[in-house]
Amino acid sequence: MRQLQFWFEFASTYSYPAALRIEEVCARAGVQVVYEPFLLGPIFNEQGWQDSPFNIYPAKGRYMWRDLERITERQAIPFRRPSTFPRSGLTAARIACAARTESWLSQFVRKVYIANFAEDREVNASEVLGEVLTDLGLDADVWLGAAALPENKVLLRHQTERAISLGIFGAPSFVSGTELFWGNDRLEHAIEHVSG
Amino acid sequence: MRQLQFWFEFASTYSYPAALRIEEVCARAGVQVVYEPFLLGPIFNEQGWQDSPFNIYPAKGRYMWRDLERITERQAIPFRRPSTFPRSGLTAARIACAARTESWLSQFVRKVYIANFAEDREVNASEVLGEVLTDLGLDADVWLGAAALPENKVLLRHQTERAISLGIFGAPSFVSGTELFWGNDRLEHAIEHVSG
Repeated sequence: MRQLQFWFEFASTYSYPAALRIEEVCARAGVQVVYEPFLLGPIFNEQGWQDSPFNIYPAKGRYMWRDLERITERQAIPFRRPSTFPRSGLTAARIACAARTESWLSQFVRKVYIANFAEDREVNASEVLGEVLTDLGLDADVWLGAAALPENKVLLRHQTERAISLGIFGAPSFVSGTELFWGNDRLEHAIEHVSG
Repeated sequence: MRQLQFWFEFASTYSYPAALRIEEVCARAGVQVVYEPFLLGPIFNEQGWQDSPFNIYPAKGRYMWRDLERITERQAIPFRRPSTFPRSGLTAARIACAARTESWLSQFVRKVYIANFAEDREVNASEVLGEVLTDLGLDADVWLGAAALPENKVLLRHQTERAISLGIFGAPSFVSGTELFWGNDRLEHAIEHVSG
């Protein structure tokens, strides 16, 4: 089965609509999604940003929030502007690394995005992540524990290094072979490339 | 007839595919295009950038050139990466201001973009702009002269101030009522908003 890499960061706003629709649009095209968590923070730091560009550049930020409101409305998914932005997705990303071969990974990813961008919850908090894991019928302590293991911390750092080496500078990004596609609005182009 | 404002900057890469398709997609929807030239330079300067962000952030720039190659291929329009980027569109933008009520404005805009992004020509040079104007059956001296008139210089500065007041921070941008849409890939959303 052909595969598409989905590079996502839990703090990324436009990754939310992408995460919620990628399984459906890829399934329709007969493409398998490979979840690739990474962190944007180190990449932004290298560009001289200590914060999200949406906070650093207010006009861009104002536009993004309104655009995201429109995009989620078109997609008919809930949206509430988070009272804190960006929220760290560090622990969730480490869990995603630990769970890379688990069948529930895609559901976990969607639930974390919904908690942040539709329910305005502190998605780096153990209580919130614990609830998400429990909802999936999992042992929360096991997976919160996995997030704290050195091997999964290293794995996430390695993921961010891989992202940089692929030329990734934002999220969501999609990789098919050596082709990089950036942005929720490029998902269809990426799928065409995989299928082509 | 319903109208859509098309805010464009001649140096802007993604404005090229937008400029080449906007008349057709708007006509199909029964929407009239209002050409709104402006300059990104002063807006970028305010954000602390003395150059295009595509030059300042190399990963973003590398991606953009590849993406633009793909986008123009999908759209079946010619593309050659300009040997100089960004190229000033100052004189062309002043001509566009002077020609705001002329029926040939849309053709002029497309020809300037093609000269820059398909023919790799110095589009701020009088010879190149003169040729574009002559090709349109116009008196090149008259319109190059108009570009140098204080009133058209003021008009372009005023356009850039209007752009800022509309929340514009990049190009192409589309404005329908109080709604702003940014990027070639948002043109369809903008047209739906005008039509809705």
